[in-house]
Amino acid sequence: MVGFLSVIKELNARFTELMRLNYVSTLLGWDQQVNMPKSEGATMGRSEQIALIEAISHRKLISKKTGELIKKAENQPNLNLIDSAILREAKRKYDKAIKIPIELVTEIAKTASLGHQAWEKSREKSDFSIFQPYLEKMVNLQRKYAERLDIGPTLYDSLTDIYEPEAKSEWISNIFKEIKPKLVKILNKLESSDLNKPNQEILKRKYDPEKQWKLSMEIIKKLDFDFKKGRQDKSVHPFTASVSSMDTRITTRIWEKYLPACLFGSIHECGHALYEMGFMEEIHDTFLADGSSLGIHESQSRLWENIVGRSKEFWNYWYPTLQKYFPENLKNYPEHEFYRSINAVKPSFIRVEADEVTYGLHIILRFEIEKELINNNLRVSELPELWNTKMEELLNIIPPNDAQGVLQDVHWSGGAFGYFPTYTLGNLYASQIYVNALKKNPDLPDDFKNGNFNNLLNYLRENIHQYGRIYRPLDLIKRVTGEELNSNYFIKYLETKFYPIYGI
Amino acid sequence: MVGFLSVIKELNARFTELMRLNYVSTLLGWDQQVNMPKSEGATMGRSEQIALIEAISHRKLISKKTGELIKKAENQPNLNLIDSAILREAKRKYDKAIKIPIELVTEIAKTASLGHQAWEKSREKSDFSIFQPYLEKMVNLQRKYAERLDIGPTLYDSLTDIYEPEAKSEWISNIFKEIKPKLVKILNKLESSDLNKPNQEILKRKYDPEKQWKLSMEIIKKLDFDFKKGRQDKSVHPFTASVSSMDTRITTRIWEKYLPACLFGSIHECGHALYEMGFMEEIHDTFLADGSSLGIHESQSRLWENIVGRSKEFWNYWYPTLQKYFPENLKNYPEHEFYRSINAVKPSFIRVEADEVTYGLHIILRFEIEKELINNNLRVSELPELWNTKMEELLNIIPPNDAQGVLQDVHWSGGAFGYFPTYTLGNLYASQIYVNALKKNPDLPDDFKNGNFNNLLNYLRENIHQYGRIYRPLDLIKRVTGEELNSNYFIKYLETKFYPIYGI
Repeated sequence: MVGFLSVIKELNARFTELMRLNYVSTLLGWDQQVNMPKSEGATMGRSEQIALIEAISHRKLISKKTGELIKKAENQPNLNLIDSAILREAKRKYDKAIKIPIELVTEIAKTASLGHQAWEKSREKSDFSIFQPYLEKMVNLQRKYAERLDIGPTLYDSLTDIYEPEAKSEWISNIFKEIKPKLVKILNKLESSDLNKPNQEILKRKYDPEKQWKLSMEIIKKLDFDFKKGRQDKSVHPFTASVSSMDTRITTRIWEKYLPACLFGSIHECGHALYEMGFMEEIHDTFLADGSSLGIHESQSRLWENIVGRSKEFWNYWYPTLQKYFPENLKNYPEHEFYRSINAVKPSFIRVEADEVTYGLHIILRFEIEKELINNNLRVSELPELWNTKMEELLNIIPPNDAQGVLQDVHWSGGAFGYFPTYTLGNLYASQIYVNALKKNPDLPDDFKNGNFNNLLNYLRENIHQYGRIYRPLDLIKRVTGEELNSNYFIKYLETKFYPIYGI
Repeated sequence: MVGFLSVIKELNARFTELMRLNYVSTLLGWDQQVNMPKSEGATMGRSEQIALIEAISHRKLISKKTGELIKKAENQPNLNLIDSAILREAKRKYDKAIKIPIELVTEIAKTASLGHQAWEKSREKSDFSIFQPYLEKMVNLQRKYAERLDIGPTLYDSLTDIYEPEAKSEWISNIFKEIKPKLVKILNKLESSDLNKPNQEILKRKYDPEKQWKLSMEIIKKLDFDFKKGRQDKSVHPFTASVSSMDTRITTRIWEKYLPACLFGSIHECGHALYEMGFMEEIHDTFLADGSSLGIHESQSRLWENIVGRSKEFWNYWYPTLQKYFPENLKNYPEHEFYRSINAVKPSFIRVEADEVTYGLHIILRFEIEKELINNNLRVSELPELWNTKMEELLNIIPPNDAQGVLQDVHWSGGAFGYFPTYTLGNLYASQIYVNALKKNPDLPDDFKNGNFNNLLNYLRENIHQYGRIYRPLDLIKRVTGEELNSNYFIKYLETKFYPIYGI
C-alpha cells in the first residue's frame, strides 16, 4: 500500500508542477494581450519566454520518469474518482506529447506569439497579406502536429480531439448537418415575418466607454464573479485566463458605438470564469482544474450570455439600471423594444456579434474551411475568397473587406484549429443543461426577475463546476441530464424564444 | 577555433535561457504587486509558481554542464569585452549558486512571497507581530544563505556582495562613518538658520490623484521614458522591473495629500528605467542586461530624481505646467518657494519621503541594524525598539507607531538584506558622475531650463547605460570620472545646494 500511495502522490506532484508551468505560461499570454507594449521587440522577447516555458514543460511531460509513473499507476487497483481522472488526463497528455518533437512545440509557440501580433496589424489594416505568411507557417506546423498525433481518421480529427475529447469530426459533421437546415429554416421564417422587425439601431448609438465599463463590473459582480479570485481588464479580443487555481481573469472590449460588445462580452467571459472559480479544492493545481472540454466550457459562457443575459427576465431586473447609466439613449425607450433589439436576428459579418440563430452558421463556415485546410484540400491563399463565397452561400451576404471577413478571429493566429466547433457544441450543451436546471428549479425565470442569479449558479456548481475535468464531456452531459447530447433542445429553445419576438 | 566559438556560444545560450527565466519570474512578481487579487489563495498560488521557476532556474544554473562550460570557457584565450564579462558574471552566479542547496532557494522564494503579503497587512495595521514570524524565518534563511556563500569576513558581507560586487561591509562602514558626522553637521547648520525655513505645507494639500498620474506620465515622457519599451502602473511600493530586454516597467504610488510621492517616485523609477532601456543590443537577454551594481543603478535614479528633478532649473521649466495642473494650490504660489519646499530639510520618519540630507542617516540606521541582525548580534523581536532608539539618536525623533517605523520598507520581507547601503552608495556615485557630466557639458543646467533633458541622457547612455553590467561598479566609476569613489562630491553637492536655500 505504501508503494501504491507513493506512486499516485509522485504522479500528482509531477503533474501539479506541469499545471503551475501552464499557469505561468498563461500569465505570460494574458500580460501580452492586456499590458505589454505593442512593439516588435517586446513581442519577440515574450515569444521567446513563452517558448522556453513550453519547452521546459514539454520536456518534463515526456520524460522517462513520467512514463514510468503512469505505467505504475495504471497497475494500481481501486483508484478513487479524482486519482483515476488525474491518471486518465496524465496519460492523455503524455500520449499526445511523446508523439511531438520538442522543436515542433517550440516553433508553434513562437509562431503563435509572432502570428498574434501580425494578425492584429493585418486586421487593423484589413490586409490579409500581412498575416498570410504567418498563417501558412502555422497551418503547416499544425498539419505536422496532427500527423504526429495520428488520431485519425483525418488529420483534422487529431486537432478537434485536443479541445473536445472523443469528438470525431464525422460526429461533429453529422450534428452540424442536422442543425444547418433547421437554422436556415428558422432564419427564413423570421425574415419573412410581417411584424415590425427588431433591429440594433438603439444599440449603435453612443455609449460612454467609462460607463459601459462600470456597468459591466456591476453586472458581473451581481452574477457572483469573485474579485478576490480574479479581475476584469480590457483587450482586443475578450478571453478568460486562469493564472492560478485562485486567480481567474477575464477581459472585455468596449466599443463606444456598439453596446453589446462590452455588455455581453463581459457576461460571456464571466460565465467561463464562474466555471473555473467553482472547481472543488481537491482538484486545484491539477490538470482537472479545467473545463471538461471546450464545448462544456463554452456551454457555461453561452448559458449566462444568451439563455440568461438575453432573456426577458434578466432585463426585467437590469433595464432600470441600464436606463440610469444611459438616460440620453434609453430613458424613453421601452424595455420590451430593448429586449427585442438585443435579440434581433440578422445575417451579419462578425461572428462575435452574431445573433443566436445565425451564430451556428458562422461556426459551420469556419468548421468547413479549417477542416479542408488541415486536411490539405485548401491553400491559405484561397481563404479570403472562399470565406466570402461561403458567407454568401450560408448567410447571403459578402464582407466588404477582410477585416470583417477572414481576419476577424484570433484563433488561427494562435494555431487553434479544431477549436471553432466547440462554440456550437457549447450552445447545444447549454440548452440541454438549462432544460434540466429548469426541471429542478422551475422558479429560475422568476429569480432572474428579482435579480437573484444564485439558484442557477448553485445548480451549475453542484452539477458541473465543482467537477472540473473529472468527467468527460459526453459522460458529464449524460450524468447531468440523463441523456446523450441532443440538438433538438437547442432548436426548440430558438423557436420558443424567437418566434414570439417576431410575432410568429 | 571552432571549439572556442562553440563553447562561448553554448555558454551564452545557456545563460540566455537563465536570463529569460529571470524575466518570467520578474513578471510573476510584477503582476503580483500590480494586478493580482490580494487574497491568500492567489498569493499562495503565485508563490508556488515563483518558487517553481526559481527552482528550475537554479537547477539549470548549478548543473554539471554549466560548470563544464565555464571551465572550458576560462581556458579560451583573447575573449572579447562582452564575452569575457558574460563569463565573469556566469562564473559569479555559478560559484554562488553551487553553494546553495535548492531547497533553501525554494524556501526563500516561498517565504518572500508570503512575507510580502504579511508585511503589507502588518504595515496596514501597524502591528509588527503579524510580520514578525515571517521576518524571523527570513532572517534565519538569510543567515543560512550567507553561511553557505561564505564570502566573509562576516555573514553580512556575503549578502552585500550580492548587490554591490566587491563592496566589503568594512569599506561601506568606513564610508558611512566618514559621511555621518558631515551629514549631521549640515543638518545642524540648516536647522540653526535664522531664515524663514522652507517647509512642505504646500505639498501636503489636496492634489487630485488622476491629475497627479497624468502629470507623472507627461514628465517621464519628456525625460524620454519610451512607452514602446515599457509602461507605468501603480503599486504599494514603487519599483522598476524589466520583464524582457525590450519591456521595462515602472510603478508609482499616488498619495492625494502628498504631491512628492507620485511626482518624485515616478522620476526616480524613470531614472532606473532609462538605464535599462539604454543597454546596447549586443547584451540583450544576457546577464549583462542589468545595472553594473545596485549602487550604480541607484545612482541613475537619484541623479534624475534629486540632482535633476529637485533642481532650480528643472522647475524653471516645469513649474508653469505644474501650476496649470493644480491652479487651486499653486496659481499664486511663487516658483522659488515651491523649489524651497521640495528641498525642505527636516528629520522625518519615512525614508522614501526623506530629504537629501537626512536620507543618508535613514540608510545608516538600516545598515547598522541589518548588519547586526544577520551577524547574529540582534533578535527580530528587538527590532521595533532598537529602530526607535536609533531614530532618536540619529534624527532626534521617535516614530509614533511601527508602520512609520520598522515596518515602512518592503525590503526585508523579500529577504533583501545588504541592499540598503546601495541607496547611499547611489547618491555618492550620482554626485561624482554628475560633476563629470557637467565638466563635459557645462550647459546642462541651461538645457534643463529649456526642457531639454537629452544631453544629459546622451551622456549617461554613452558613458554608463549602454554597458549594462559589462564593467564592475568601481571600475566603471573610475573609467567614467577618472578617480575612485569619493564621498566629498556628495557632501559638496549638498552644501552648495542647501546652504543657499537656507540663507547660509
